[in-house]
Amino acid sequence: MLSEFDLIKQYFKRHRPGRAALGIGDDCALLAPSPGMQMAISSDMLVEDRHFFAGADARMLGHKCLAVNLSDLAAMGARPVAFTLALALPAAEPAWLGAFAAGLFALADLHGCELIGGDTTKGPLTICITIFGELAPGHALRRDAAIAGDDIWISGTLGDARLALAGYRKEYALDDAAQRMAGTRMHMPTPRVALGLALADARLAHAAIDISDGLVGDLGHILAASNAGASLNVDALPAGQVLAAQPQALRRQFCAAGGDDYELCFSAAPEQRAAILAAGAASGTALTRVGTIDAAPGLRLVDAQGRALDLQLAGFDHFASA
Amino acid sequence: MLSEFDLIKQYFKRHRPGRAALGIGDDCALLAPSPGMQMAISSDMLVEDRHFFAGADARMLGHKCLAVNLSDLAAMGARPVAFTLALALPAAEPAWLGAFAAGLFALADLHGCELIGGDTTKGPLTICITIFGELAPGHALRRDAAIAGDDIWISGTLGDARLALAGYRKEYALDDAAQRMAGTRMHMPTPRVALGLALADARLAHAAIDISDGLVGDLGHILAASNAGASLNVDALPAGQVLAAQPQALRRQFCAAGGDDYELCFSAAPEQRAAILAAGAASGTALTRVGTIDAAPGLRLVDAQGRALDLQLAGFDHFASA
Repeated sequence: MLSEFDLIKQYFKRHRPGRAALGIGDDCALLAPSPGMQMAISSDMLVEDRHFFAGADARMLGHKCLAVNLSDLAAMGARPVAFTLALALPAAEPAWLGAFAAGLFALADLHGCELIGGDTTKGPLTICITIFGELAPGHALRRDAAIAGDDIWISGTLGDARLALAGYRKEYALDDAAQRMAGTRMHMPTPRVALGLALADARLAHAAIDISDGLVGDLGHILAASNAGASLNVDALPAGQVLAAQPQALRRQFCAAGGDDYELCFSAAPEQRAAILAAGAASGTALTRVGTIDAAPGLRLVDAQGRALDLQLAGFDHFASA
Repeated sequence: MLSEFDLIKQYFKRHRPGRAALGIGDDCALLAPSPGMQMAISSDMLVEDRHFFAGADARMLGHKCLAVNLSDLAAMGARPVAFTLALALPAAEPAWLGAFAAGLFALADLHGCELIGGDTTKGPLTICITIFGELAPGHALRRDAAIAGDDIWISGTLGDARLALAGYRKEYALDDAAQRMAGTRMHMPTPRVALGLALADARLAHAAIDISDGLVGDLGHILAASNAGASLNVDALPAGQVLAAQPQALRRQFCAAGGDDYELCFSAAPEQRAAILAAGAASGTALTRVGTIDAAPGLRLVDAQGRALDLQLAGFDHFASA
């Protein structure tokens, strides 16, 4: 059995130059934003049997737990800088730790995001990452910045992660290839970091949020914070590749209120349409216009013909759904 | 049952001016250190049945989980600024949440440390706090800065928290009053923030660490990082009020390798003795000189007469002790 200190050293301490003035191995890490920049900070906790299945692939889990945090930075338009990792483990298993670290660092290195500290302890498998990004004051993509008349945009595609969950749970039958393809969207989300940066740097977007609990619920946070309403064309929502081949009712449900998508939902002035599409192309991210911010409160779901849809949808709530 | 969002709002969102440019309720919080300052960052995870008993008093738990993080800032000499809280809870119980928040915020307010974000989820009771302090570049009390000839100092007293644990575990018999008094040291540790700041601001100390896993193990981290050794007078160690009345063998054991003390252990040049005692007095913290940093590697434990002691001691290791 590895000791806690050996564990940290062997799997998580890397000998390479980083941004931190002091990293792993002291009481605190030392870090400063670039001159004149603000730090954007977010913290997410992933719990076994709640956010991932017991026995989940350790490499994909390492990817996902950092991806969901990077997605929060993307939704603010912040550039990733560093993160801390607190890890409760039932046991220190070298194979698991090696795979987890490999998945974690592959994504971290892709975004130049340095592990600067954390904690390890024995306990039910729980992963808490706190991530640090930086951005120029006044450039943050805040939830409270949507303006009536704004377009509503969605990056990438929605619903395949929720479809994969339905397949794993036997709520819905998928063949093996479809289950595997949808499962990849669930286990290996792509945080839209470059898109978020482009939107914030050039001030192309007003409000933004990342879609983690389902579009309707997450868009609802923008509307509440911005004292606004919206009309959402449910049939314009970009379904994931596997979901796109399923019946309309399921497409609508899982696009509008799936969860675990980690795409960006943002609002922007209609004059920015060309610039936004260019930013999407430059960052390799498909973008779809799906609705409009309204002055009147409430979220109106409509179909392709503009007719009101009465879907029974709810964002994911960890306690309400318990 | 409260929803996750009601939960956050009701217990953890406070309406008062703070340091953060943007706090709870967006994808990230926004924070900048004061001009020219570095941020010190630390993360600790506390797990039920590991770091605290099931059914632990929620108010004291709220205090303790922030105290252990403040203690990490103290050990760097950083001024507390803000923290994030990630909380996994089996259920959202209003009475528990109210008491937990009360204990947490009482200590946070004492140190001007603002809750700026976090996460709540359902799961086995687990608390992860990431804390942010600031300090001037070059002033950090690092583990690798001990110099041969330095005095070794300890703040406050040691061992009562470990004694309380022995009592709860029925390893050792304590009467009710003694159990209660020692228990307070275990449940309500006092982070030595003012002392750490004074030592760093005036550059009085070289290396420092907070004693969380037992003095011998934690001092060992300083020695390893500083490529140094030390002589430690075990009988000079300041025993807690309850431990001081127990037999010598127990006093030695629990002072040298108790754990959960959250006192500071630091090294400083002998010329600084008067200034250090003054800093201790100014911050209301008793200070005791307990040994010397040596050039020769290894930690030599001696008694009051300078005779070698062969105690079987080990710092607390979450995995090795499993």
